[in-house]
Amino acid sequence: MAHVSFVLDPRLQASTLAVGDLGLSRLLLMNDARFPWLILVPRHAGLVEIVDLEARDRTLLMEEIALVAHWLRQRAGVDKINVGALGNIVAQLHVHVVARRIGDAAWPGPVWGAGTARPYGEAEARMLVGEVSRLINT
Amino acid sequence: MAHVSFVLDPRLQASTLAVGDLGLSRLLLMNDARFPWLILVPRHAGLVEIVDLEARDRTLLMEEIALVAHWLRQRAGVDKINVGALGNIVAQLHVHVVARRIGDAAWPGPVWGAGTARPYGEAEARMLVGEVSRLINT
Repeated sequence: MAHVSFVLDPRLQASTLAVGDLGLSRLLLMNDARFPWLILVPRHAGLVEIVDLEARDRTLLMEEIALVAHWLRQRAGVDKINVGALGNIVAQLHVHVVARRIGDAAWPGPVWGAGTARPYGEAEARMLVGEVSRLINT
Repeated sequence: MAHVSFVLDPRLQASTLAVGDLGLSRLLLMNDARFPWLILVPRHAGLVEIVDLEARDRTLLMEEIALVAHWLRQRAGVDKINVGALGNIVAQLHVHVVARRIGDAAWPGPVWGAGTARPYGEAEARMLVGEVSRLINT
């Protein structure tokens, strides 16, 4: 059987800024300044559902969700963390971890499908990716 | 410190049918015939975020998500599983595991906040709860 390498879905790539790789997942920052929004993409080819992961990797994924959620939660003004694995549009398994504020652009509804992304400015994006990238080597 | 018992949020109770208890979570069937939709509520008092769980319980929660997702996925006509922990309206930590079909009432958007629930008929509800309850003793 040929070895199939992990390749990030081009739609995920186009809508995010790359942060780096955790033990299991590629960490992405959604390019939408309306919400502090990170995405974890387990780096195995062909994954669609959480149950496609082996139990050991599911535990790893959960710990990476917790790491990212913990980081988001300690940011100023964050009222709630939303975690979601949907994949109705992009099938490649990816987990959203989103910081929500009461009264934000989609509150109290979900962020998925809500309005139009507002891309970060270049300086803001660089600063945020720099901050998030501290998670990579912890 | 007084021991505080787990009490299911009354809004979750009102919108669901109780199935039973897994090792960590109470398992509920959302009373919405538009989507096969289960909810896991970890049975510790005071939980709001996934990171409020200890690492061991996070692993347990992930395995209960996988158990439920696996069961939903093998049902006829299911195209995608959606998993979400939002809590913007009901703060008590709960995880949605929803079977999606291409063209369903909210496709490809999220189910949360989409339209109005269509309650099950009594016989249908009893049958489904019976089927789901087989997950309890596995």
